[in-house]
Amino acid sequence: MTISDYLLARKGLIEQALEREMLPAGGPFSTHISAMRYSLFAGGKRLRPILCLAAAEAVTDDSTIINNLLPIACALECIHTYSLIHDDLPAMDDDDLRRGKPTNHKVYGEAAAILAGDGLLTFAFELLSRPSTVLSAENCMKISHLVAGAAGSLGMVGGQSLDIENENKEYRFELLKTIHKNKTGALITCSVQVGAIGGGANYQQEQSLKSYGKFIGLAFQIVDDFLDATSTTEELGKTAGSDSERGKATYPAFFGIDKTKHKAREAIQAAKSALSSFDHRADPLRHLADYIYLRTH
Amino acid sequence: MTISDYLLARKGLIEQALEREMLPAGGPFSTHISAMRYSLFAGGKRLRPILCLAAAEAVTDDSTIINNLLPIACALECIHTYSLIHDDLPAMDDDDLRRGKPTNHKVYGEAAAILAGDGLLTFAFELLSRPSTVLSAENCMKISHLVAGAAGSLGMVGGQSLDIENENKEYRFELLKTIHKNKTGALITCSVQVGAIGGGANYQQEQSLKSYGKFIGLAFQIVDDFLDATSTTEELGKTAGSDSERGKATYPAFFGIDKTKHKAREAIQAAKSALSSFDHRADPLRHLADYIYLRTH
Repeated sequence: MTISDYLLARKGLIEQALEREMLPAGGPFSTHISAMRYSLFAGGKRLRPILCLAAAEAVTDDSTIINNLLPIACALECIHTYSLIHDDLPAMDDDDLRRGKPTNHKVYGEAAAILAGDGLLTFAFELLSRPSTVLSAENCMKISHLVAGAAGSLGMVGGQSLDIENENKEYRFELLKTIHKNKTGALITCSVQVGAIGGGANYQQEQSLKSYGKFIGLAFQIVDDFLDATSTTEELGKTAGSDSERGKATYPAFFGIDKTKHKAREAIQAAKSALSSFDHRADPLRHLADYIYLRTH
Repeated sequence: MTISDYLLARKGLIEQALEREMLPAGGPFSTHISAMRYSLFAGGKRLRPILCLAAAEAVTDDSTIINNLLPIACALECIHTYSLIHDDLPAMDDDDLRRGKPTNHKVYGEAAAILAGDGLLTFAFELLSRPSTVLSAENCMKISHLVAGAAGSLGMVGGQSLDIENENKEYRFELLKTIHKNKTGALITCSVQVGAIGGGANYQQEQSLKSYGKFIGLAFQIVDDFLDATSTTEELGKTAGSDSERGKATYPAFFGIDKTKHKAREAIQAAKSALSSFDHRADPLRHLADYIYLRTH
């Protein structure tokens, strides 16, 4: 199976699960639910849930376990989607386009978009606190706690705050690293770590997979900066060049295009090195690392 | 101890716990954390956490249990505070004043206010997923699941969506009830129910306390509508008469002032009836019911 086939199959599995878990439109809250569904089913790469399942796969062959982790994988995607809806708001990045479609507030209005984000974030924790047939309540709590930490004020929300706060300001590379690590990296790392826990990783395996997750998160953000600087809006499905237009610091702004690509490759190699003690079951994670780098081609 | 003394003591206990649990200002995310703290420590009544602890008290004398429920009580207050910050936003109710102070976005700007709300909501689930010394992991999960349900799209967020959607529209009393039940009632009922679970209530006790919570939630919203129609801005600490100004349906709009007051009393009596099988340990809940009604005097 090639990585493209693997990603396609996993994307299908996750989208089926999202469809199964997510509230159906209808009832008294129909408009609100439609607004959530609009962004959740707008066709993302589903990277975070795929990483979560692939991390579990790296430590177990048991497909029952993998399937039972789908609600956790869905929760990660709900949190990612909520963050995009809020980031796109006029008061934040003021983006009109996301995944090639009008942003949530462009379709449903600002109030409904804020509430769609709130609803998705809350729904994620509803999924995470649902009793599991394969995980102990202690492990479910641990996973929920890690996700809340990664998504919260000392993670993703904190990173977005710093990003907004420092727009159009000249800032040092250290600050860029802090923003990337929190805004994007924290949830990606967490996706890998909770997949590892869900798969039954021992302490050493969990730490190695977490380390993989950190480098993958970094690589992903470097590549994202690279693409924002080098692609067209059509290729990206969101407004290209918007980072530099908004006076945001990026890797290309600090290092230029070539060195940015080199740094992405370094991060990818470090991610793969973190997997050195794993057998072939970690191949999907290895291929995922290459796949992220391939986007720069 | 009078109810005023009781409320004051409980408020003190909860504010100490919030101070202990909440992130201290400082570090790279200092502005964001300050924005969260600004609204969290703006001096609310702390009704939801007080109800939570009082419900636990109705089924146990053990002060260790009560004290160990404080993180759950704090989570409820964080969720309530986040909902106020988002409700006050220009895209929603566009309020300038809350608890006698400028609203969050007036002080920190819209982007920071949205993120302060997001941070508080996420932090609530971090608190709810923290291992407890008195509760089993299964009960912690149950509590987290109930809170997510009450705060989410089929609860508080759904109610707020309906409210915004129907501004300046003529609507039936049924719709007003649905909005109240979800926007305000769901989290209040849930506060009582999770306190009951935390205190070790048996099934019957939990159901009775949940029923008390439903009537208290209803009474609280009727009284809130009453006060919005009859008080000055100074008395309320938020803009008085803002409901009718924004074309929102309220109890006084449907029934007039006197009948609204009567309906509040009916709900209070129903709440107290739900406690009939409880001994003196439910007295704080009984006094709280009276206290809510007394605000109409």
